Amino acid sequence: FPGGTPFELKLLENYDNEGYILFSFHTGEHTGTHVDAPMHFSKGAPSIDALTLDQLSGPLVVLDVQKEAAAKADLAVDVSHITNWENQHGRIPDGAFVVINSGWSKRWTDPKAYVNLDAAGVMRFPGFSLAATEFLLTQRSVKGIGVDTLSADPGPSSKFEEHHRFLSAGKVNLENVANLEHVPASGAYLFAAALPIKGGSGSPSRIFAAVNANRSSK
Amino acid sequence: FPGGTPFELKLLENYDNEGYILFSFHTGEHTGTHVDAPMHFSKGAPSIDALTLDQLSGPLVVLDVQKEAAAKADLAVDVSHITNWENQHGRIPDGAFVVINSGWSKRWTDPKAYVNLDAAGVMRFPGFSLAATEFLLTQRSVKGIGVDTLSADPGPSSKFEEHHRFLSAGKVNLENVANLEHVPASGAYLFAAALPIKGGSGSPSRIFAAVNANRSSK
Repeated sequence: FPGGTPFELKLLENYDNEGYILFSFHTGEHTGTHVDAPMHFSKGAPSIDALTLDQLSGPLVVLDVQKEAAAKADLAVDVSHITNWENQHGRIPDGAFVVINSGWSKRWTDPKAYVNLDAAGVMRFPGFSLAATEFLLTQRSVKGIGVDTLSADPGPSSKFEEHHRFLSAGKVNLENVANLEHVPASGAYLFAAALPIKGGSGSPSRIFAAVNANRSSK
Repeated sequence: FPGGTPFELKLLENYDNEGYILFSFHTGEHTGTHVDAPMHFSKGAPSIDALTLDQLSGPLVVLDVQKEAAAKADLAVDVSHITNWENQHGRIPDGAFVVINSGWSKRWTDPKAYVNLDAAGVMRFPGFSLAATEFLLTQRSVKGIGVDTLSADPGPSSKFEEHHRFLSAGKVNLENVANLEHVPASGAYLFAAALPIKGGSGSPSRIFAAVNANRSSK
């Protein structure tokens, strides 16, 4: 299991008494596929239960950086990756979630490969550069960014520049996102169905996308 | 906090070391707003992680039984409640989630009133009768039923007839659903975004509905 507090199930009932099975569980707010609330890196900023569904859903923009990430594990997604996407698909829609598909989710079942420590003990996985974060915050109007890795900051980051800058602006990060190969680069609509944990800094979340099945009326 | 395993947050970091706050938590699979997977009452039936999003979303049918539940706390919703709805709104759509609005969610913040034990220690809250369950399973084609109470079986049930019958058919229950006063009786579309807990019998879930904002093209 890659990173953080492990998910642990505890059996409470096993069909014997009342005819049902029942577990409790212990996990981290930031374990598995999850949403970071603004308060995670910003004291006084909204907790996960304070976010509306509107803040947790929007047009999905997928940046395919698989080839580059295969060559450079700690790829920092930059402004050029965003403008390349825009050259193909048009301007990033207002309210979008910009998520990278680095191919990292294939490593999920191999925690060592997912965390990917180098010889010096530094984590090597892709994330967003501060420049890209700044661009999305100031030049575009997005609701969140997302990664198919452990952290929205690239693995080697020790200062968590993306987290500090982006979450303090009241936005959310989606982390350990998976199955991005099944959604189009443009045109899908994302829902990050976080649990409204009272005062929580984040939540394990079912994150999914709807694909518009209509033909264009143009 | 009404019923079952309480939700407990544990502070792990508080901005002091790495600049972030972080909690772990312990809770029940069936605590708060949640989905019951078929395996909850049916050995060998699908666990919560085996359900597709298709099995967890569909047209929302809201049965308003607030007046009756105010007069009779342990109201067992019957076939007549379903046919009354159909007389107003047409046949229950295939794949629907049929959810009662009994007004019970107003009691959530008062656990004693929500569980509502009578003098003999019997719980008194509304749920589905076995006859209504059987009707929805055999005469209609629904994906799930839901309640704004602790259990899909009425409070006094000790045999959990609805749970045994409905879940063993591979369907799901939604329990402790809230905010039903904000959705129409007909025409909304429900998403029960369960966490895919491996081998879990259910999951705390963000449950929400989309309301069609289009004008009819008729």
